[in-house]
Amino acid sequence: MDSRQRYQVLLNKINQYNSGDKGITRIAYTNEEQTCTHAFMRMCKAEGLDIRMDQCGNIIARREGRIKGLPPVLMGSHLDTVYQGGKYDGVVGVTAALEVVKRLNEKGIVTDHPIEIISFACEESSRFGVSTLGSKAMAGLFDKEKVGNLKDRDGMTLEEALSLCAFEINSIEFASRRDEKIKAFFELHVEQGPVLMNDNKKIGIVTGIAAPVRLSLIIMGTPSHSGTTPMNMRKDAFLGASEIALELEKIAIEEQPYGTVATVGVVDIHSGAMNVVPGEVEIKVDIRSTSVDSRQRVLTHLFQTIELVGRTRQLEIISHEIISEEPVLLSAEINDVIQKICEKRNLPYNMMPSGAGHDAMNMVKLCPTGLIFVPSVNGLSHHPDEYTDLDDILIGIEVLEEVVLHYSKIDSDFS
Amino acid sequence: MDSRQRYQVLLNKINQYNSGDKGITRIAYTNEEQTCTHAFMRMCKAEGLDIRMDQCGNIIARREGRIKGLPPVLMGSHLDTVYQGGKYDGVVGVTAALEVVKRLNEKGIVTDHPIEIISFACEESSRFGVSTLGSKAMAGLFDKEKVGNLKDRDGMTLEEALSLCAFEINSIEFASRRDEKIKAFFELHVEQGPVLMNDNKKIGIVTGIAAPVRLSLIIMGTPSHSGTTPMNMRKDAFLGASEIALELEKIAIEEQPYGTVATVGVVDIHSGAMNVVPGEVEIKVDIRSTSVDSRQRVLTHLFQTIELVGRTRQLEIISHEIISEEPVLLSAEINDVIQKICEKRNLPYNMMPSGAGHDAMNMVKLCPTGLIFVPSVNGLSHHPDEYTDLDDILIGIEVLEEVVLHYSKIDSDFS
Repeated sequence: MDSRQRYQVLLNKINQYNSGDKGITRIAYTNEEQTCTHAFMRMCKAEGLDIRMDQCGNIIARREGRIKGLPPVLMGSHLDTVYQGGKYDGVVGVTAALEVVKRLNEKGIVTDHPIEIISFACEESSRFGVSTLGSKAMAGLFDKEKVGNLKDRDGMTLEEALSLCAFEINSIEFASRRDEKIKAFFELHVEQGPVLMNDNKKIGIVTGIAAPVRLSLIIMGTPSHSGTTPMNMRKDAFLGASEIALELEKIAIEEQPYGTVATVGVVDIHSGAMNVVPGEVEIKVDIRSTSVDSRQRVLTHLFQTIELVGRTRQLEIISHEIISEEPVLLSAEINDVIQKICEKRNLPYNMMPSGAGHDAMNMVKLCPTGLIFVPSVNGLSHHPDEYTDLDDILIGIEVLEEVVLHYSKIDSDFS
Repeated sequence: MDSRQRYQVLLNKINQYNSGDKGITRIAYTNEEQTCTHAFMRMCKAEGLDIRMDQCGNIIARREGRIKGLPPVLMGSHLDTVYQGGKYDGVVGVTAALEVVKRLNEKGIVTDHPIEIISFACEESSRFGVSTLGSKAMAGLFDKEKVGNLKDRDGMTLEEALSLCAFEINSIEFASRRDEKIKAFFELHVEQGPVLMNDNKKIGIVTGIAAPVRLSLIIMGTPSHSGTTPMNMRKDAFLGASEIALELEKIAIEEQPYGTVATVGVVDIHSGAMNVVPGEVEIKVDIRSTSVDSRQRVLTHLFQTIELVGRTRQLEIISHEIISEEPVLLSAEINDVIQKICEKRNLPYNMMPSGAGHDAMNMVKLCPTGLIFVPSVNGLSHHPDEYTDLDDILIGIEVLEEVVLHYSKIDSDFS
């Protein structure tokens, strides 16, 4: 079995852990995801790695280096998915890291620095509305007061979900590696956008990450009978939500030159029924930009809209910030190394921002960090039809292997 | 115990059957509702009535008349509720009917015609999106092909829900009383609107019922990553839904002179998540009027809106009619009798249409039918705070008793 076949088998194996009928559903801290992560640990152990799971459910699989006491070089991504997601988002980065280790083992390469495969817990926000929990915990950024009581769609809190997996929210602080020296972190990920495909590029070298601001808006009107309440006596919370969503779209389109996007992705009518005028609606808003100023203009306009809609429709609207993350710049030094690797290998590449959040944005707090994209066909992601060509993933793995070797060995072409 | 106390105890007893934490939740064909209906049957039996439950779950409790072979006079309403509904909608009509029988028993009155208490199954559309299933079955209007596969929010079909209660959908046709002669049907119900309270009236004599047209709209765009999909490359199904809902409101306001109302009460984003641009949304639309022409104008404009939104936003929109019921006129002769009763008793009354659907609209197909309203405080209904004053219910019971006696006895003041 060549390494191409070997990698395909590994990718398929991971995607067997799936609770959905369409695409892949492997939600953080569920049975499918836990079975998957523990199976992955056994795969790492089979490669001779020292494995452990930290207090937040992150996997750390370590290949010791030649020189004792040198800081480790980390690589990885996440194994959890959205509801009805694809086979590549996150999975590619974790499986690529294991494939790199297999290659080093095969070649008998001993690096100076230790190398660690990381599989981060709960990267996707699908379940609790907050993303990258595992890398936050590792970077010492986990805020248990803010997220512990967030609920999934069945009403289970994050704290309860952790507890079901035998994690204890009060122990998550011990997952922090803030006091440890780490040499570098590398994440290989599918682009989840159409830019590389449209530009005919093989590698995206990510310069910065447009982290999201996320809000929950509770819009309260008066529930009443849809047959007996005249139009002029209604306080319809859903119509207020609709106006806010459409205005948000308008603002975001104005900010498009700054790459700003805004989305209402979750709408929940409380006790919705055809014969009830909606009395209470929750919507969840996601705003992203690499420009802090542009994002702030959208937010300001959104709050003006909320005030206006509340006043004209006599609705009470409460907004609550779920999360606000700062856009993050990645290591220029690392990107320089990756760029040289691409040029040496004649790989067409883009220097580009990321509109999606990634674990890399938290790891920046711990060490120099690099994020490498491979193309997503039609930019489709978080969808059963998400697709990245196997050859393109293998190109990404080559680049990952080389940059990891560069940072974990003393002698190198680019040091 | 006077009849006022007695009635209050009965009302409280019925509202013990409740699965909700806010208000009353007693959904059709659930354990709470089935326990409630069977308990009610035992209460009827205790008053010496012949009880039976038909093939659809309707209760029929019969008090035989003096003269053999005369057609029965029916009275009743329903015991099921919406999610988090109130204590009065439906329940008042059923409990009032039992109170009327208790009074006749107490006074030793024997009527010429049999009298029947009816408690209709599944009047509310909350569970399956269609209303008045029990009275449809009794009136021979149950269309099993159209409704059998409708699903509740847990994905259970009506056929399965019936089966769990040991009802068989193919036997429901036997619940029809189309071939039987029925003298009259009377339903006492809370108004569920603010008109009687605003006009300071005690009794509403309903002239007609504005039955709904209900549609399901499936709006299909493209799900994509909310961080990586530029605003101009999105096909956001929820924004399409928002535009349709706001335009529907605008049309309905224009038709307000005809008492027309339109509501989007159910919105479901398929696999909704904060990091996914909504790819598929279902909304459910309810349009009502006593004017067929006005309702048709709203529908026509709605379809034009669907076409326009679909074209400009590149969304595919499929509309499916869930139900279309014709507005119904109630018996002018019966209303004349009720009017005389109100005048004799000096009760302030309104002749008025009903914006809400009721079992009475199906019973019209079987016999002359009367629908009597008592005031709803602030017009609030389908809500935990739904309230009707006990004294107002007792006034309604007096009127119900007198009109039932009028139709079930030969000698009467108004014959």
